[in-house]
Amino acid sequence: MAAVEPLQRLAASLVVVRASGQLSDAQRRYPQWELANAELQRLLAAGVGGVILLGGSATELRLRCAQLGRWGGQPLLLCADVEEGVGQRFPGASWLVPPLGLGMLHSRDRQRALHLAERYGRCTGREARALGLNWVLAPVCDVNNNPANPVINVRAWAEQPAAAAELVAAFCRGLQAEGVLGCAKHFPGHGDTSSDSHLELPLLPHDRQRLEAIELPPFRAAIAAGVATVMTAHLLLPALDPQRPATLSAAVLTGLLRQELGFNGLVVTDALMMEAISANYGPGEAAVLALEAGADLVLMPADADAAIAALVAAVQGGRLSRERLEASAQRRRTALERLPIDPLEPLQPIEAIEPLEPDNALALELIEACGIRRSHGVLGGEMVGPGLGNGPGLNLVRLDDSLAAPFLPSDAPALALAERAGYRSLLLDRRSPSPWSDNPQAPLDLARLDLAGLNLAEPQLAKREALPVLLQLFVRGNPFRGSAGGGEPWAAVVEQLQRAKRLAGLVVYGSPYLWQELEPLLDVATPAVYCLGQMPLAQTWALQSLGLGLSDGPMDRRAGEFTD
Amino acid sequence: MAAVEPLQRLAASLVVVRASGQLSDAQRRYPQWELANAELQRLLAAGVGGVILLGGSATELRLRCAQLGRWGGQPLLLCADVEEGVGQRFPGASWLVPPLGLGMLHSRDRQRALHLAERYGRCTGREARALGLNWVLAPVCDVNNNPANPVINVRAWAEQPAAAAELVAAFCRGLQAEGVLGCAKHFPGHGDTSSDSHLELPLLPHDRQRLEAIELPPFRAAIAAGVATVMTAHLLLPALDPQRPATLSAAVLTGLLRQELGFNGLVVTDALMMEAISANYGPGEAAVLALEAGADLVLMPADADAAIAALVAAVQGGRLSRERLEASAQRRRTALERLPIDPLEPLQPIEAIEPLEPDNALALELIEACGIRRSHGVLGGEMVGPGLGNGPGLNLVRLDDSLAAPFLPSDAPALALAERAGYRSLLLDRRSPSPWSDNPQAPLDLARLDLAGLNLAEPQLAKREALPVLLQLFVRGNPFRGSAGGGEPWAAVVEQLQRAKRLAGLVVYGSPYLWQELEPLLDVATPAVYCLGQMPLAQTWALQSLGLGLSDGPMDRRAGEFTD
Repeated sequence: MAAVEPLQRLAASLVVVRASGQLSDAQRRYPQWELANAELQRLLAAGVGGVILLGGSATELRLRCAQLGRWGGQPLLLCADVEEGVGQRFPGASWLVPPLGLGMLHSRDRQRALHLAERYGRCTGREARALGLNWVLAPVCDVNNNPANPVINVRAWAEQPAAAAELVAAFCRGLQAEGVLGCAKHFPGHGDTSSDSHLELPLLPHDRQRLEAIELPPFRAAIAAGVATVMTAHLLLPALDPQRPATLSAAVLTGLLRQELGFNGLVVTDALMMEAISANYGPGEAAVLALEAGADLVLMPADADAAIAALVAAVQGGRLSRERLEASAQRRRTALERLPIDPLEPLQPIEAIEPLEPDNALALELIEACGIRRSHGVLGGEMVGPGLGNGPGLNLVRLDDSLAAPFLPSDAPALALAERAGYRSLLLDRRSPSPWSDNPQAPLDLARLDLAGLNLAEPQLAKREALPVLLQLFVRGNPFRGSAGGGEPWAAVVEQLQRAKRLAGLVVYGSPYLWQELEPLLDVATPAVYCLGQMPLAQTWALQSLGLGLSDGPMDRRAGEFTD
Repeated sequence: MAAVEPLQRLAASLVVVRASGQLSDAQRRYPQWELANAELQRLLAAGVGGVILLGGSATELRLRCAQLGRWGGQPLLLCADVEEGVGQRFPGASWLVPPLGLGMLHSRDRQRALHLAERYGRCTGREARALGLNWVLAPVCDVNNNPANPVINVRAWAEQPAAAAELVAAFCRGLQAEGVLGCAKHFPGHGDTSSDSHLELPLLPHDRQRLEAIELPPFRAAIAAGVATVMTAHLLLPALDPQRPATLSAAVLTGLLRQELGFNGLVVTDALMMEAISANYGPGEAAVLALEAGADLVLMPADADAAIAALVAAVQGGRLSRERLEASAQRRRTALERLPIDPLEPLQPIEAIEPLEPDNALALELIEACGIRRSHGVLGGEMVGPGLGNGPGLNLVRLDDSLAAPFLPSDAPALALAERAGYRSLLLDRRSPSPWSDNPQAPLDLARLDLAGLNLAEPQLAKREALPVLLQLFVRGNPFRGSAGGGEPWAAVVEQLQRAKRLAGLVVYGSPYLWQELEPLLDVATPAVYCLGQMPLAQTWALQSLGLGLSDGPMDRRAGEFTD
């Protein structure tokens, strides 16, 4: 028994489990994947080595990390997918534009882009550490050279390898200078895929030479900048390994990453519960294969107990050597020892907790630096001319899911500023009644949209006005969506509204590819803005760029409300 | 100076200001009304006597209360409008059906209703105290005998005075047994108004005899049960005071409440920033008038400094006596001394915070006790017959505002259970494209709704199926809405769908008045459920009552997702 127990703890230390960032079991948003507290406490007591967190406010996360530190009884790796500032996942912290914005800026102003990338990393590292995270699962090192990529997309730092390499290195320097570990992902490069490994196993048909030219430079740069960890991709690369996905491939992890690229830090798998892995390998077998291939840590196995038991059995059966696990555990300890803060340090009493205030100055600087304004047919610079006039008009807002849109609270600037200027808001999402006609040349059913505005309470409206339309499109690639907003005929809508002289203005929030498709179609007089970020601060910037919200229009009633 | 300074602190101690329940200024949802931390800290240091909190999770609220206790430097009144369980306002705590459900139960099973009302109070008190609140702004003692009441409605405990009186007394006993103060509101009774005092000053034309018969019994009962505080209503009652609203009326507060009803506890105004007051009186004058009338505490003055300065000036100018303020301050101290916990007691270190787990057993018992199931034309009891069949079908969901619907997250049972059974969800809210036709006899544009289901990505659908419709209506009165869902032709919709043999089932969440309108129209075979609560647990109960979600249907994709 005495020999088995430490082996189990050794194996457990290489497992990173998933939990909610909130304290209460009842608040879990994905209870299927987020461990209940009793399970979590049991696994941490058994030596599980880390936790990946999602959900809850910045303040809740701080409590959660303190709690986990106490439950762990050993220094833990506490991580989160905070690729776009800590506020992307944990409200109350800084929410920054997606990294691809700095790649776009890089082509115009390289020095400024690199400077901002470093500050982006500093801000993320500072806030992560303040909340108790010691491991930031960023930067995304994938080169997004495939606009159809549904899952990487604007999470990448650039579309070109050289720019991405410089930017991720700058981010890593800033991030790790704040005393947290970074993570270069998804090795050896997930940028050129048009399918989502959350849903299936993508195939990358490139040979080694092509990888060297496109995919690998950002990883080499992050490693040279001292990135502490690398995350594997669930991709099949037949040129390197015709059988196993990169996550489970010795050729990729040991041959390429460790030996050729000389990476000595921690190698962590992407979530093993993703379909690309879990559809083909059981939770125990996937963990054993990952360690055999050269990974140090297994992230989110579908069943943590099964993963630990399988690792133990693999050592006992001679399939994995104990030294192999010891080496990974040592790399984990070394990474934790690099950190300036002992996670078990005594913590403050609750009444002394001070809030984190987000760095809105940096967030706004990034929005401005990465945004594009178009006026009278000219891109960039100040808006000239009158911009968007006051209403009456329609404020047509497209988004994926109005029930899961943290960027669009009921009083979001995209609604409030437009409404104050006289535009009635109309939301289109995947659960709306159809806005479409049968005519591909005029896909919007304008007669129906002219009935807009508090429609639900007004079944019979007396008049149908042909109002000008402010079009605001929130479109970006997101995991599990399977597309990046494609399939909707926005180009035809722009042309339809312009033919009818009804396009008052256009804002695209998110996808640069949609902007690139629509911008050339615009009449000279149509004011338009592209903004990579979707958060409220970005909306204010975009609509102010169009001339809305600069002075106080008549207040809508919402502004007077004070309860719900 | 030495005499002025204590007078200012004395006046300040009678003011209750408004703040967010979250720590960070950046997270305030109503920054126009919620003090920034620097202001809040200054006012508390100056002796402000209490804070009303809204927003943030249960966990955040606990930190916030601890922080305010430290800033106060004196015991503070910390309160919130948690009328429907603490989870109504602070996610993570128990979210209970609106009180009117127990009034409905009371007519069928008086003992059970009273027993549940006391447990309702106990649950609310226990959780409030656990989070640091010491003052619960409940029970609503208004008798909702006006179904058109836009603001009280289901917040009331009953439509009949005697039932309301028994129920609020039971609630008060349970609540205050847990060591927090209760608050009987809105004196002398806001139940029979058809306008919202958040927006204008309602008028109650009743004479004293009628008040005695309808409005006053619940207040008398709460006072007899020992309720610690009473909140005033912003109502004009010409029979008692032709000039001043109740909040500012000596006839109402001193004559009726103190002298006739013999209430010796704390009298607090409703929020002075509400339009009914603020449109007619400045923030300083309103505070002075309230104290002159007999109030002890002024809640949410539009400007706390102005209110304090006006009270000081009124004493210095001889308009109010210093003794008058001293008496109120003494009542405030007495109320705080009744509490078992010293709010300044040293608090736990943050890593020791344990989550509050909501009392879902009570929440579900209330849902079941207050719900109504109808099958084969028979109300109540078990559902008989096949219930709702599996789809394909449409799941037509009506709500006020999908961007401010805490009861309807993207994976809410009202969506997920229906979708798993093959019903495609379609959401109608105030920002949707119009679902209406021009025909009052057939108000739903069914041809358009048949295009439903991921519409946004499918501009041209090949087929338009005439699918059965599951109708789920989330309708209840809410402050600031100005109506309780009226104006929409749901009765005609029910008849239209039944004529077309397309009404698969009906659920009304919230308004008993809408249910009472629709239920008699239903065909014998149409299964239907009424559920007063709108929260996810209520949705599960309602749809399971219709036969959905009892066994596992095919999983929708959402269930496999694990990130956003």
